[in-house]
Amino acid sequence: MTNKKPLDETEWDLWHALKTLSEAGLAAVGSVLETATGLSGSDFGILSRLEDLGDGALSQQRLQASLGWDKSRLSHHLTRMEGRGLLRRVRPASGRGVSLKITQKGRNAVAAARPVHASAVREQVLRHIRPPEAAVLLELVRRMRIPPTNGA
Amino acid sequence: MTNKKPLDETEWDLWHALKTLSEAGLAAVGSVLETATGLSGSDFGILSRLEDLGDGALSQQRLQASLGWDKSRLSHHLTRMEGRGLLRRVRPASGRGVSLKITQKGRNAVAAARPVHASAVREQVLRHIRPPEAAVLLELVRRMRIPPTNGA
Repeated sequence: MTNKKPLDETEWDLWHALKTLSEAGLAAVGSVLETATGLSGSDFGILSRLEDLGDGALSQQRLQASLGWDKSRLSHHLTRMEGRGLLRRVRPASGRGVSLKITQKGRNAVAAARPVHASAVREQVLRHIRPPEAAVLLELVRRMRIPPTNGA
Repeated sequence: MTNKKPLDETEWDLWHALKTLSEAGLAAVGSVLETATGLSGSDFGILSRLEDLGDGALSQQRLQASLGWDKSRLSHHLTRMEGRGLLRRVRPASGRGVSLKITQKGRNAVAAARPVHASAVREQVLRHIRPPEAAVLLELVRRMRIPPTNGA
């Protein structure tokens, strides 16, 4: 039996709190990053995953699973990043399974952005969270059995 | 003085927990929604905001602020939704400030999706959160002074 009534106010508040917590944090970090480095939060997330998960090259499918984006959003974003020279799509002769390769320009950009990203995560997000709150968040994620993401 | 060292393991764990909490919840809700209704979580977020914030019509700028997406991602997504007949872009004679209008097809789609969305939010997310955890999350959002979002 599923309850299909509209969410009540308490339910909305909690659902929005969860979404807002991460969205506002990501937006604040992304904004600092973009101003300082020219990479958006999404650009940084993709380039850092290419390096951290794949040593510079990764299948588009694996990147998609790690980001949790839908296929069409990722594909459009990769086209724009390819146009900016940050990465290349490599299509194997078989025509199946596109790979992504970071370019030297992409490597330089992400290297410059990493310290800015670390500092922004601390300043914009982590310093607001008290230790007992951190413990609750970590336990909640663990209990929901959400597989850990990697990269940015 | 900002600390630009790489994030240590404890810092990464907390940052990933925050992002994962909302991303995994959104992905789970989006997946149920898309299978049952053909609307992605993003489609639903946009259509429900057009109705709830603007009674069916909203400036693209206000929608963007409410979603917290970057302009280019939103613009590409709206083009695809317009192509599917879910909404229309309306350009004023002055040429400044695009408005969005939900179509009847969009209204029907979001009306069918609302009960599925409510049920999925409860099943996929809210039932995992115990009352004391909910209190911590709400207080954290309040203290970070994050303005509440509306809509989905």
